[in-house]
Amino acid sequence: MSTENTDLTLIVGSKNYSSWSLRPYLALKAAGLPFREVLIPLRTDDTYRHIRLYSPSGTVPVLMHGDIKVWESLAICEYLAELAPEADLWPKDREARAFGRSIANEVHAGFAALRQNMPMDIASDRRHESRAHLVTDQIARISAIWNEARERFGRRGANGAGPFLLGGFSIADAMFAPIATRFRTYGVALDETSQQYCDAVFAAPGFKEWEAAALAETAVFQFDVFQKAD
Amino acid sequence: MSTENTDLTLIVGSKNYSSWSLRPYLALKAAGLPFREVLIPLRTDDTYRHIRLYSPSGTVPVLMHGDIKVWESLAICEYLAELAPEADLWPKDREARAFGRSIANEVHAGFAALRQNMPMDIASDRRHESRAHLVTDQIARISAIWNEARERFGRRGANGAGPFLLGGFSIADAMFAPIATRFRTYGVALDETSQQYCDAVFAAPGFKEWEAAALAETAVFQFDVFQKAD
Repeated sequence: MSTENTDLTLIVGSKNYSSWSLRPYLALKAAGLPFREVLIPLRTDDTYRHIRLYSPSGTVPVLMHGDIKVWESLAICEYLAELAPEADLWPKDREARAFGRSIANEVHAGFAALRQNMPMDIASDRRHESRAHLVTDQIARISAIWNEARERFGRRGANGAGPFLLGGFSIADAMFAPIATRFRTYGVALDETSQQYCDAVFAAPGFKEWEAAALAETAVFQFDVFQKAD
Repeated sequence: MSTENTDLTLIVGSKNYSSWSLRPYLALKAAGLPFREVLIPLRTDDTYRHIRLYSPSGTVPVLMHGDIKVWESLAICEYLAELAPEADLWPKDREARAFGRSIANEVHAGFAALRQNMPMDIASDRRHESRAHLVTDQIARISAIWNEARERFGRRGANGAGPFLLGGFSIADAMFAPIATRFRTYGVALDETSQQYCDAVFAAPGFKEWEAAALAETAVFQFDVFQKAD
C-alpha cells in the first residue's frame, strides 16, 4: 500500500455546481499538497454510473490516498488536517478548534432550505430570483456565525493572522466557501464583515482556479446546447 | 476559565425524539466522562426559547465545558475524542479512522428521506407504517455500510475487540445509534450482520439508561394528555 502524501487523487463533480467538491479542493490547496484530479460531469446520463466507480456512497467528492478512500467533504478535510499538520487546517487553540468544528458541522448538515433554493451556480447571475422566508432566516444565521467567528477568533488570529473566520484559512472556510459563492450569485446584501469575509474567500488559495474552471465548463455546456439547437 | 474534564454539561432534547442528542450522550458514556445533563422537552411552546438560552444555532445538543460551548452532535463527539484520548472514540489506525469519519459524516448530513419518514420514536411500535421507495434505498445503503464496516474493520478489531462497526465502540456507532432505534421502531427486516450490530448498539454503554428515560418521559407525556382530556 502506497500512501505517500503525493499519492492523492480527488474525485470532484462539475465545478460550477458541485458545492461539496469545492470544499476539500480548497482544503487541499490550502494544505499545499499536490494531487491529481478526476472531474465527473454532473447532470449527464452517465453521471451516477461514473461516480459509483469511485464512491461507495454514490456521491462526490472522494479522496483516494493510495488504497485509502475517504468520502464526505468534511471527513476528507479532517483527513487532510491529520495528513498535513503543519498546514494548520484546524487551529492549535482548543476553543477555536471546537468553534470551527461546530460551525463546519452546522453547515455540513444544515441550511437545507438555502441549499435547495439557492444551488451553487458560480457562472450565473441569479440576483433577481425570489427567496423563501426560511432562506432569509438561514442567511441571517450564517451572517451571525461569520460575525461571531471574526469577532472572537478571526481578529485575534486564533489560526494565525488572516482575513478568514478563525484568522488564517481553516476547514471552516473550506466548508463555507460554497455559501459565499451563493450569496454572490443570488445577490444577497450582507453586512460589512460578512462581505469582507466573502471577498477573502474569493481570494483564497485555489478559489480562482476553481472559479475559472467553473466558468470554462459552463461555456462549453452552453456551446453544446447551441450546437444541439442548430 | 475552568475546563476540568469533570466540568461538562450536555444539553439534550426529549430522549424519545432527539436523535441528535443521543449521539454525544453515548460518546460521553463510552468515554466514561462524568457530566451534568440539562434536558429540554421538545414540542412545547417554550422549547425554542429554552434551547436558545444555551445554543447559538437554536438546536440541541450543546456541550458546555467551562466557558467552551460546542454544538452539532459530530463536533461534540470530535471534541470528546480529543478530551479523552484514552477512550479511543476514534481508532488509532488511520484507515479505520478515515472510514469511520466518512460514514459518520455520511449519516450526519445524509439520509434525509429516512429521517423524515422514520423519525426517532423509541417508545413506540410503528412497524406497520408504510415507507417511501427512497427510504428503502437508504436502508439498503446503511446496511451496506454496516456490513462493510464489520467486514473490513470490526471483525479484526481495528478499534479494539468488540461487536461495533470498527470493533470497540467509536464515534461512528454514536452517530448510527438513532438509526438502529428507527429500524426497531419501524420493524425494518435486516440481514444478520446488521441485526447483530443493532443488538450491540442497544447494549452499548449508556443506551439502556437513555432508553429507560425515553420510555419514562413518554409515559409522563401520555399521562399529561390524559389529565388535560379529563
